[in-house]
Amino acid sequence: MRPSQREPNELRTVTLTRNYTCHAEGSVLVEFGNTKVLCTASVEEKVPPFLKGKGEGWVTAEYGMLPRSTGSRMKREAAAGKQSGRTQEIQRLIGRSLRAVVDMKALGERQITIDCDVIQADGGTRTASITGAFVALTDAINGLIAAGKLASSPIREAVAAVSVGVVGTTPLLDLDYIEDSACETDMNVVMTAAGKFIEIQGTAEGEAFSRSEMNALLDLAEKGIGELIVKQNAVLAA
Amino acid sequence: MRPSQREPNELRTVTLTRNYTCHAEGSVLVEFGNTKVLCTASVEEKVPPFLKGKGEGWVTAEYGMLPRSTGSRMKREAAAGKQSGRTQEIQRLIGRSLRAVVDMKALGERQITIDCDVIQADGGTRTASITGAFVALTDAINGLIAAGKLASSPIREAVAAVSVGVVGTTPLLDLDYIEDSACETDMNVVMTAAGKFIEIQGTAEGEAFSRSEMNALLDLAEKGIGELIVKQNAVLAA
Amino acid sequence: MRPSQREPNELRTVTLTRNYTCHAEGSVLVEFGNTKVLCTASVEEKVPPFLKGKGEGWVTAEYGMLPRSTGSRMKREAAAGKQSGRTQEIQRLIGRSLRAVVDMKALGERQITIDCDVIQADGGTRTASITGAFVALTDAINGLIAAGKLASSPIREAVAAVSVGVVGTTPLLDLDYIEDSACETDMNVVMTAAGKFIEIQGTAEGEAFSRSEMNALLDLAEKGIGELIVKQNAVLAA
Amino acid sequence: MRPSQREPNELRTVTLTRNYTCHAEGSVLVEFGNTKVLCTASVEEKVPPFLKGKGEGWVTAEYGMLPRSTGSRMKREAAAGKQSGRTQEIQRLIGRSLRAVVDMKALGERQITIDCDVIQADGGTRTASITGAFVALTDAINGLIAAGKLASSPIREAVAAVSVGVVGTTPLLDLDYIEDSACETDMNVVMTAAGKFIEIQGTAEGEAFSRSEMNALLDLAEKGIGELIVKQNAVLAA
Amino acid sequence: MRPSQREPNELRTVTLTRNYTCHAEGSVLVEFGNTKVLCTASVEEKVPPFLKGKGEGWVTAEYGMLPRSTGSRMKREAAAGKQSGRTQEIQRLIGRSLRAVVDMKALGERQITIDCDVIQADGGTRTASITGAFVALTDAINGLIAAGKLASSPIREAVAAVSVGVVGTTPLLDLDYIEDSACETDMNVVMTAAGKFIEIQGTAEGEAFSRSEMNALLDLAEKGIGELIVKQNAVLAA
Amino acid sequence: MRPSQREPNELRTVTLTRNYTCHAEGSVLVEFGNTKVLCTASVEEKVPPFLKGKGEGWVTAEYGMLPRSTGSRMKREAAAGKQSGRTQEIQRLIGRSLRAVVDMKALGERQITIDCDVIQADGGTRTASITGAFVALTDAINGLIAAGKLASSPIREAVAAVSVGVVGTTPLLDLDYIEDSACETDMNVVMTAAGKFIEIQGTAEGEAFSRSEMNALLDLAEKGIGELIVKQNAVLAA
Repeated sequence: MRPSQREPNELRTVTLTRNYTCHAEGSVLVEFGNTKVLCTASVEEKVPPFLKGKGEGWVTAEYGMLPRSTGSRMKREAAAGKQSGRTQEIQRLIGRSLRAVVDMKALGERQITIDCDVIQADGGTRTASITGAFVALTDAINGLIAAGKLASSPIREAVAAVSVGVVGTTPLLDLDYIEDSACETDMNVVMTAAGKFIEIQGTAEGEAFSRSEMNALLDLAEKGIGELIVKQNAVLAA
Repeated sequence: MRPSQREPNELRTVTLTRNYTCHAEGSVLVEFGNTKVLCTASVEEKVPPFLKGKGEGWVTAEYGMLPRSTGSRMKREAAAGKQSGRTQEIQRLIGRSLRAVVDMKALGERQITIDCDVIQADGGTRTASITGAFVALTDAINGLIAAGKLASSPIREAVAAVSVGVVGTTPLLDLDYIEDSACETDMNVVMTAAGKFIEIQGTAEGEAFSRSEMNALLDLAEKGIGELIVKQNAVLAA
Repeated sequence: MRPSQREPNELRTVTLTRNYTCHAEGSVLVEFGNTKVLCTASVEEKVPPFLKGKGEGWVTAEYGMLPRSTGSRMKREAAAGKQSGRTQEIQRLIGRSLRAVVDMKALGERQITIDCDVIQADGGTRTASITGAFVALTDAINGLIAAGKLASSPIREAVAAVSVGVVGTTPLLDLDYIEDSACETDMNVVMTAAGKFIEIQGTAEGEAFSRSEMNALLDLAEKGIGELIVKQNAVLAA
Repeated sequence: MRPSQREPNELRTVTLTRNYTCHAEGSVLVEFGNTKVLCTASVEEKVPPFLKGKGEGWVTAEYGMLPRSTGSRMKREAAAGKQSGRTQEIQRLIGRSLRAVVDMKALGERQITIDCDVIQADGGTRTASITGAFVALTDAINGLIAAGKLASSPIREAVAAVSVGVVGTTPLLDLDYIEDSACETDMNVVMTAAGKFIEIQGTAEGEAFSRSEMNALLDLAEKGIGELIVKQNAVLAA
Repeated sequence: MRPSQREPNELRTVTLTRNYTCHAEGSVLVEFGNTKVLCTASVEEKVPPFLKGKGEGWVTAEYGMLPRSTGSRMKREAAAGKQSGRTQEIQRLIGRSLRAVVDMKALGERQITIDCDVIQADGGTRTASITGAFVALTDAINGLIAAGKLASSPIREAVAAVSVGVVGTTPLLDLDYIEDSACETDMNVVMTAAGKFIEIQGTAEGEAFSRSEMNALLDLAEKGIGELIVKQNAVLAA
Repeated sequence: MRPSQREPNELRTVTLTRNYTCHAEGSVLVEFGNTKVLCTASVEEKVPPFLKGKGEGWVTAEYGMLPRSTGSRMKREAAAGKQSGRTQEIQRLIGRSLRAVVDMKALGERQITIDCDVIQADGGTRTASITGAFVALTDAINGLIAAGKLASSPIREAVAAVSVGVVGTTPLLDLDYIEDSACETDMNVVMTAAGKFIEIQGTAEGEAFSRSEMNALLDLAEKGIGELIVKQNAVLAA
């Protein structure tokens, strides 16, 4: 039995709270169990230099953890004077995942920046971030449509993400921190509503993993992401 | 009439929510109207190098704003590679204010770090931070007492803070962002439960201010801080 | 009796030496006793990006201490790779104080940068800096008038600053380093020739301070700043 | 037909030149076609602080590209003052891949640092780096054994890596730069001699990819890595 | 006898390999014995801001050492976040030396950046860099002529450099690392084909040196640089 | 005739003012005409890590220019976040020059840091710095002797420095800024009281220079440094 009393193929309780803060064009608190991430979408009517004049937009992401979002206090990156390699990896992953479902020509020359700030961490912050960021991004784009700045949505389909892993010899869905610390293999999967992959990152933390273990993990991820996309749709329809 | 429909000497609605997150030894969400700051207290059983072996503790603070806590997105300080002068001023103020009410000998060789992270900003983030930080600090210290690490509290008395300012010619208590942007004089006051000052920072943003305007502002601050300390006591007694 | 044999309400010997160096548009060595600060004013016919095209000027300040201006050598900030929080606080204070007495529209689209570099420190470097900076700024502006670039002075009135503090239970004017290290309360006051406040920063270093102590300190500051403005006028008239 | 006239499942010409430079404990020039990376292994008889006294060793990696290893000159990271997110991702990947095949207890309290510096880039620099780094690491460890500092090798098995990708709709092995720029899906696979995975990183650059495309890519990767490990063995046996 | 069995006035074996890598407009591996430096020349059709619109070109250089080019591993400057003072001195020297032989008006508004990256170090990396950089620069400029972008070469004459030094009391030409570590005086000389000096940097590492020692060193340098320029000519004519 | 009405072989008016500031163990204002540099020597009873326990001392130097020491304001290096290559070159040169005349064993395990801060610049700041720094260093060491911490002086002989250069075709001694900006060749020479060289740095800014020009420049430098050392002796004997 898992520490959280879940079945191996069971997600944690997932909630997506829209309009969590008041200033951003999209603002979503995403919770995967005790993992809580605030995702805000900020629209700017300009693009980075490399895109100027090309008639295309840009979607990018930044990620951070509050210093005491974790069990022991982490050094504040702003005080340290740089973002860690891990932070940069995660924010690059979030940005790629969102860009994969947006038609940049249709977005027009504007940039949407997604900030994912971890309020409380219990494993899976990057996958929760992607899942919440998609909702914040959608809200920001719907605001552009409502304001008459876009005729239709440049979003092609929904995207969500989940972690899976092998603990002992059991493949598990949506690892919390205790499981993540003990796992042999850790995999983050980003998938579209159509069931195709945008990103798969599997890492052997302990034992190297076989092709069949990988397939079991992907089965779990497909199930979990399907459920997450249902939740995204529900909260966006509310 | 003020934009928020308040009387000149009226605080915004203030709430202090303890145990807002689960990992920190103290965790308080403080709200002054739409200003929301998460204050966490982290205890470490070590002191900075300059205090090693002196039998004294240390209390320090760090401050940050989420990039989209404000009306337009601010650059993330971790990405910029340094904290702004404003950020450093504020975190130094919070640290001094808290140290002023703690007996460092009685705290013993340990450090408590208060992180104040602004989730949503609408003026007064530094005074809200001090007010919330005191509650988080108290919770952390009570945890040390409960764990048998301290026999009694090294906290001498409560501390809270509020902003006051002259808008047009009217002295006002607890400025929100609209008022703060328009004020002639802006003053932040930090005070103890005994009604003495720990810090007064008054700045003429427009017209220089007279001694009598200053006195009117201090009268307002005394009233407001008295009310804030009642709220701190109430929430700590709950 | 004070270590320097002064009365409680007595300034140190103050001198303001104009044209101390030859390149800057204004160059003043200000001495408050053993505290010596070189204040230079540099005029540039351009403004920072946020003011471009608005028809307004800008006045800003930078502050530094020579590594051995103090009793023990401080790390050089250029070698450390960043300015300390204290340095940033002080240079922001100097800049605000000067901007408060200059009409930016009347200055026109140009920037004046005041550099305050501490040659020798014995307490009160920030207040000496403001007092000397005003003279350097005036010289630079008079140079613009003499060169026909300005028709009349955009300076509205003089500004000067002094520190006051409570040592033991005695309020004292213009603290030197020994007094500053021992004081219960430390206050920096910036005031105009008209006797109004631009900035008041009072900090309890030891005991919190009462309203009546504060009033006694402000009385001292008013007296001292009045004398400093007389000295500024005298040296500018010479 | 591929631009390089290769079959879809054909590696580029791979060479591994040992003792390429004279100072390092292991020094290998690895070439995957026109991609050339110098991999050096440096042994130090100390470990990072977090491992001190634990009786374990450490293997870590750093990665860099010479500014003109690429078609247009890249900014030198040392001059820019920081390593890019991409650089950090790659060096973390190399380090994890090598650590996965080394028994840290058996290595003892010493650190081996692998530097992978790209002399000339034509796609696949990270996978070439891992493949060459393993040989350099092996040489360094064999040197420790020869010097009597280790009784037997702490290396559990060989590791190598290759990139695979879908160009158009065709899965290809070992992409060069032209193919990499045009691919829909890009996947880097790290595998052991036993045929198990250490790391899989698949990214949709264009179209999202299906489970069956993924399986085709893994088949190619398994074939290619098998061949690379044969080459590693051959050159180490020489 | 010298450790390398050379006569006091004998250069190490010098080779200059053109087209060492494939992307750069000039790419030369220069070897002075065991010292190996890759010099690449990159042409950009733009100039730095201070030259914009002046009708002149610019030649600049950057220098780096691979972390394990030396006997013990050096910290990677990109990871350290800054270039050392030594690195900056060397790259400024290389840039000045090359600019001294190029007519910037005749080059036109374009910049050529020479990157000198030390693959293996055994003393004399800066003088080898200058010697190799000149060949890479010439190749790049000949490419501009071949492409019809320049009518004739803006290079006025060849430039090369060598180190000389006093070891014990003997003046020696072209010091290797062992000699460099033991020398009393170390001098780097940069000279043109016409036998005039562009740069002389002599430093007493042990005993101060006399005018006659200096003259003996310059005699050696003149001889050595004459030979280096013959080699440059030969390889460029090949 | 030179702009300053000097003969070609004539130094500017040189003054060395000891005890210029009150805190440092040595404090000298050195003036070469309008060039004014404050040189302070700070003694610390510890050495850098690489010398710990070796029974040797260390002498090092740092250099800076006040932002408006020059004709147009330079960016403050502390604000820029790093020291320029030029600054680092100069401070390395000052440090080497001083170390060359001190017996580090005789100094014992302590460090003396010389800070050279340019108050006003008119050419030759690095040579003025070395000349003044030697006097400050001597004062600091004499203080150690007076305090009984050293039995005798570890200084072997005096050191001073001067710039020389070819303007048009005329070799000149001690260039001021106008001459320095116009010169064909610029040379900085550091020499001991015994007339031997510690450092020679000659650079062709315009035309390359011949051996005979070099000899003429060294003749001038020998004359000038001889005079500087007389001045150092005189002021130290006062």
